[in-house]
Amino acid sequence: MRVIDHNSITDVAIEQMASTPDPRLKQIMASLVRHLHDFAREVDLTPQEWIEGITFLTNVGQKCTPFRQEFILLSDTLGMSALINHLHDRRATQMGTNTSLLGPFYRQNSPNMNPGDCIVKSPRQQIVIYGKVTDVDGNPIPNASVEIWQTDEDGAYDLQKQDGVAVPEMDMRGTFHTDANGGYYLRTVLPLGYMIPMDGPVGDMIRAQKRHGYRPSHIHFLVGAPGYRELVTALYAQDDEHIDSDTVFGVVETLIVNPVKDDPNSPMKGYPAIHFDFKLAKAAAEGTGRVGADPSQIVKASH
Amino acid sequence: MRVIDHNSITDVAIEQMASTPDPRLKQIMASLVRHLHDFAREVDLTPQEWIEGITFLTNVGQKCTPFRQEFILLSDTLGMSALINHLHDRRATQMGTNTSLLGPFYRQNSPNMNPGDCIVKSPRQQIVIYGKVTDVDGNPIPNASVEIWQTDEDGAYDLQKQDGVAVPEMDMRGTFHTDANGGYYLRTVLPLGYMIPMDGPVGDMIRAQKRHGYRPSHIHFLVGAPGYRELVTALYAQDDEHIDSDTVFGVVETLIVNPVKDDPNSPMKGYPAIHFDFKLAKAAAEGTGRVGADPSQIVKASH
Repeated sequence: MRVIDHNSITDVAIEQMASTPDPRLKQIMASLVRHLHDFAREVDLTPQEWIEGITFLTNVGQKCTPFRQEFILLSDTLGMSALINHLHDRRATQMGTNTSLLGPFYRQNSPNMNPGDCIVKSPRQQIVIYGKVTDVDGNPIPNASVEIWQTDEDGAYDLQKQDGVAVPEMDMRGTFHTDANGGYYLRTVLPLGYMIPMDGPVGDMIRAQKRHGYRPSHIHFLVGAPGYRELVTALYAQDDEHIDSDTVFGVVETLIVNPVKDDPNSPMKGYPAIHFDFKLAKAAAEGTGRVGADPSQIVKASH
Repeated sequence: MRVIDHNSITDVAIEQMASTPDPRLKQIMASLVRHLHDFAREVDLTPQEWIEGITFLTNVGQKCTPFRQEFILLSDTLGMSALINHLHDRRATQMGTNTSLLGPFYRQNSPNMNPGDCIVKSPRQQIVIYGKVTDVDGNPIPNASVEIWQTDEDGAYDLQKQDGVAVPEMDMRGTFHTDANGGYYLRTVLPLGYMIPMDGPVGDMIRAQKRHGYRPSHIHFLVGAPGYRELVTALYAQDDEHIDSDTVFGVVETLIVNPVKDDPNSPMKGYPAIHFDFKLAKAAAEGTGRVGADPSQIVKASH
């Protein structure tokens, strides 16, 4: 009988998992167990702290619904989601536009829109966003899909306006397609920065850490075309006061933009314009680059 | 603007949490973030693997009820709970009986019983468990509480027999008290080893790892007296085929027992007897040593 103590328990656990047929699962679990155990030893975690952790994780799981993904929010606020993004970018064989977090508010099948359409109904000043979708050498990609989603003037996504039962209508989101020269243009309003959802266990954590909980103003994009790496990214408003202290660490310097008042190149005059070109890298063998998910794909509405 | 990459993101996240007023929370979160990020970098975790992890953790949280604690089960099967136990034992200033996992089936306020009472109604061969509760020097502790709980002949706890709504009656558990000489004795049956609950996400993990999923036969004890460290432990049956490969790593060599047929010292003749003395260390300033919890204390029945 092997003597198990606070050090040898780690090897004992990993050895028991050595029967795992899938080599990648085996590798991931062994690494996870070693780092989790190292963490517990390093801080000398007590039973009371452990049960507080169990309770916290349980509450995070129970807070998830088809409209809300509290575990993604936890991953975001711990910097894990941003890290996964950076690792994903680093694996790319070609460097396209930087990625940024998909976040918990993406929804599949947003309404198809025509060039120049506005994705929001709002009395506020509309802006134009325009540019090209190209490969990394600048060659235009026609008929690429450009999905966009963002918050309204109150800093809320359509998914946050649901009543807990019905799936809310799609709003402040849409799918555009590039023309024969790879060009796209659309209208929206510059969203406000907003606090992450603070009424759950992750909000409790943020408050206990005295963090402000804000994300700087940003607009999400998911850009795709057959044969190219799906690009999940966001554009960040330069003037936002939290541009340097994003609660979910999503800001990347190359993604910071600022509307220009009289841009002579804008396809629609009379609106402040943001010019941004998306560069897509060639597709690799690996799967999606979406660091985030449609919450209804994880917790089904019928649950 | 600081450039964030797959390495610097870790320091950036920890710096944002540096505002945490509670120094212990600050220490724990910084260590957790560093080890989680190290894990993701070490295995070069992909977005797809990350979303599988998010989905798994969400399912674990949603599987929890007032009668079932799937996160404790996950902690148990990763060796985390046993590690917390070993760290707890190591912090003790006096070495009493080794601790073992409380597990997810403990319930507060089990029925008070008299010496020699049997905690189960079963046609199977009853056994006697007897001994003393003493301090680490062998001085008897009168009126110490000895809580015991275990499975029936099908390997199920009372909590596992609930219909999903009503709280099941207490069964196969009871609370005894030591006499003036620190002595206790009670009757039960030797439980069978059993599989951990395999119908949830943790069961899926165990199957994917081709682990057998069994715990060796064991009987839980929680022993307490004012001024002493609460002792959470279990006795393990020597002849069980999984005594060396417990799925939750709870077996400790000093806790392995074997019923003796004609023990002349047994207080009740005619039954196979297990003699086990519990040694309690003096209480330290720190709180409970329960690595485990009554599930209804985490997810409330009204939820």
